[in-house]
Amino acid sequence: MKQIKVDITDTLSAITRADIDAAMTEARQSLETVDTGSGAGNDFLGWNHLPSQLLADNALIERIEETAKRLAEKCKVVVCIGIGGSYLGAKAVLEALSDTFAPYRPESGHPRVIFAGQNIGEDYLYELMDYLHGKEFGIIVISKSGTTTEPAIAFRLLKDQLVKEQGAEKAAERIVAVTDAKRGALRSMSDTEGYTTFVIPDNVGGRFSVLTPVGLLPIACAGFDIRALIAGAAAMEASDQTDSLLYAATRNALYRSGKKTEILVNFCPKLHYFGEWWKQLYGESEGKDNKGIFPASVDFTTDLHSMGQWIQQGERTIFETVLSVETPEHEVVIPTDNDNLDGLNFIAGKRVDEVNKMAELGTKMAHVDGGVPNMRITIPALNETYLGQLIYFFEKAVGISGYMLGVNPFDQPGVEAYKRNMFALLAKPGYEKDTEAINARLAR
Amino acid sequence: MKQIKVDITDTLSAITRADIDAAMTEARQSLETVDTGSGAGNDFLGWNHLPSQLLADNALIERIEETAKRLAEKCKVVVCIGIGGSYLGAKAVLEALSDTFAPYRPESGHPRVIFAGQNIGEDYLYELMDYLHGKEFGIIVISKSGTTTEPAIAFRLLKDQLVKEQGAEKAAERIVAVTDAKRGALRSMSDTEGYTTFVIPDNVGGRFSVLTPVGLLPIACAGFDIRALIAGAAAMEASDQTDSLLYAATRNALYRSGKKTEILVNFCPKLHYFGEWWKQLYGESEGKDNKGIFPASVDFTTDLHSMGQWIQQGERTIFETVLSVETPEHEVVIPTDNDNLDGLNFIAGKRVDEVNKMAELGTKMAHVDGGVPNMRITIPALNETYLGQLIYFFEKAVGISGYMLGVNPFDQPGVEAYKRNMFALLAKPGYEKDTEAINARLAR
Repeated sequence: MKQIKVDITDTLSAITRADIDAAMTEARQSLETVDTGSGAGNDFLGWNHLPSQLLADNALIERIEETAKRLAEKCKVVVCIGIGGSYLGAKAVLEALSDTFAPYRPESGHPRVIFAGQNIGEDYLYELMDYLHGKEFGIIVISKSGTTTEPAIAFRLLKDQLVKEQGAEKAAERIVAVTDAKRGALRSMSDTEGYTTFVIPDNVGGRFSVLTPVGLLPIACAGFDIRALIAGAAAMEASDQTDSLLYAATRNALYRSGKKTEILVNFCPKLHYFGEWWKQLYGESEGKDNKGIFPASVDFTTDLHSMGQWIQQGERTIFETVLSVETPEHEVVIPTDNDNLDGLNFIAGKRVDEVNKMAELGTKMAHVDGGVPNMRITIPALNETYLGQLIYFFEKAVGISGYMLGVNPFDQPGVEAYKRNMFALLAKPGYEKDTEAINARLAR
Repeated sequence: MKQIKVDITDTLSAITRADIDAAMTEARQSLETVDTGSGAGNDFLGWNHLPSQLLADNALIERIEETAKRLAEKCKVVVCIGIGGSYLGAKAVLEALSDTFAPYRPESGHPRVIFAGQNIGEDYLYELMDYLHGKEFGIIVISKSGTTTEPAIAFRLLKDQLVKEQGAEKAAERIVAVTDAKRGALRSMSDTEGYTTFVIPDNVGGRFSVLTPVGLLPIACAGFDIRALIAGAAAMEASDQTDSLLYAATRNALYRSGKKTEILVNFCPKLHYFGEWWKQLYGESEGKDNKGIFPASVDFTTDLHSMGQWIQQGERTIFETVLSVETPEHEVVIPTDNDNLDGLNFIAGKRVDEVNKMAELGTKMAHVDGGVPNMRITIPALNETYLGQLIYFFEKAVGISGYMLGVNPFDQPGVEAYKRNMFALLAKPGYEKDTEAINARLAR
């Protein structure tokens, strides 16, 4: 197994080796805080040894694989209901590994995995139910409490549809719940209805949960190799953490030097949702106490033709971290054209990826010249193994980085504020005082 | 026809009425600079009266509609090849108007419009060609010069495939080029091969080109009403510009007060690509001379569960602009459940959108309380008319806003830097000196 690799050479236009060395010393201390569980949020460190524990406990992997197989036998479509960490990990891995045009193709051996409960779009839900009408579909519903509004609405609607179309018994066989071990609405409902269930461990926060059944079950359902994913993560867990230390140290040194926004760049459109997963992991772990790097993401070369101008010549408060996949899966060679009316014969005979790699190198040089420091993470290939490595790498690094920043990287105290207002506005039982207060405020 | 509406009330926590009034005075001057064509970049003001001119010249609309109809008769799939402004406008409108699950459904009356040439992904192109193999497909190729690398590579590959599978004659009937009136590789090729062509006007820059054949032809191909789109834009063109002035003035006042990042928010996932279009329009128009607001976008409530924490409690250097669609297209009512195990009966009987609207209101209040000023753009419904209004509104406002910022909003001097490096690295004819220089630099 090769390993993903971090290169920070092209940040040295903005910060010095001494800056990075000083930050590395802090990073090592923060790594120890993570590994000894001596810092804030230490009851949410379950992700830290999850890969090795999973490999040791073969029974859980087997049960996930068996459940995925059973769903696949019964269903053409599996709707995965969840939001935030109960959505983005599986979505990121599935997008990275799937044929881009799979949606347009006829259904194949494995069920289509599609997502719901990640928004409150009335048209989205209408169109989804219309599409599912008359189809053999199943549901994976993922929620610690079972009362998070978005997935709860989607689950109530889709369960209703499934029961109406298939009857209660068949519906119960086609629903799998991933939820708390003992408490919560979804646990009670699962016990009552007899759903197959998997447990979200108490000590793993949502944004760190892709290597629990939250992510593993939908990924297995779509036919991908969760053992390789876990093995990749376990390899990073067992490594000396040089790369996660270097990434955490360098981004903090850049932040202190005034680089307030980190743009995660890919040159492979399949990594788009990996960027979304990363934004939650970093934004939610570090954006608190009025600080934290603003996480943004772009798909190049696509977005060189939209965000490229700003990045090249806008405010000099950004840096880039590039995900560079070394080897594509397929081969396409640019053909020769005798007329050469498009003037492209100078690259005829080259693989498309050779051009993409020169775009990447040319972009790095242009952006560094323009005042945008650049880090680069090299990924040998886009498969389960290296995605597993990348996931653990970023999880480990954000724990280190958050402690360096002086925040608790494992809480998210700000995400309840809008929910409280929403429940007050919707007059949810238990929120009577909030309802009164918010109505008075709106009447002013 | 109703009209989209801007509300800036919830920015008054961060800036004063006096700030906005002062900025409005400047905005009116900038509007005059746009309308009199007396500012920098005034040879790229073709977009300003484009909607009314299109309505006056019915012949162009008819020719677009006829060409779309002809492609539809011959093709099940139309591949639209373009990048940047030759991609994002059509993509944004198609995503906003299409059924979310259309890709999964069987092909219907209109051809599927899919995109290529917006990246250099080897796997993307391989999978696309594999999907197209044996299909009745056509191509709309959009490029002013015909030599922009990404679309040129995609066109060479797909044209090759089409000729091999259908023969040269049928291929030529299924290819439409949108390009320069007289110059460039794609114009020459079209003349030689006998393609149907449309013209990209010289005085309309890429990011302003959605209401030229660049955007109109793919939108018509997919079966949407381009006359309504143009009429909506024309209505905004004919308006007194109160809303675009207010938006431009307020965002500049916020920027001056230290709000460096604008997050364009939607509560409707179909507007995701509208956000991408907006990011090009604003980022490319304003991000220069080491200044300009950093444009970011989020899909709520999805991203409240990822970026929500940062927005609520991170650095206080952001503001939000919310696109709020008043009325969804479809109706879904949340059903009652006698057992109420999920505790959702308090919203039973409500439409899903009522919950979404309370999420929107609750989020606004929470974010404003947390130090994030909020603007809101109300859109009566998601249809061609209001998308047309929104497009013109944002185009007009960015002209005003860019002049207020003191930049030329119609150029993009920074986007060539990476291309020059890439061409040098690829040893493109004409770049011999650059090739020598860049190789020397890399050898150091």
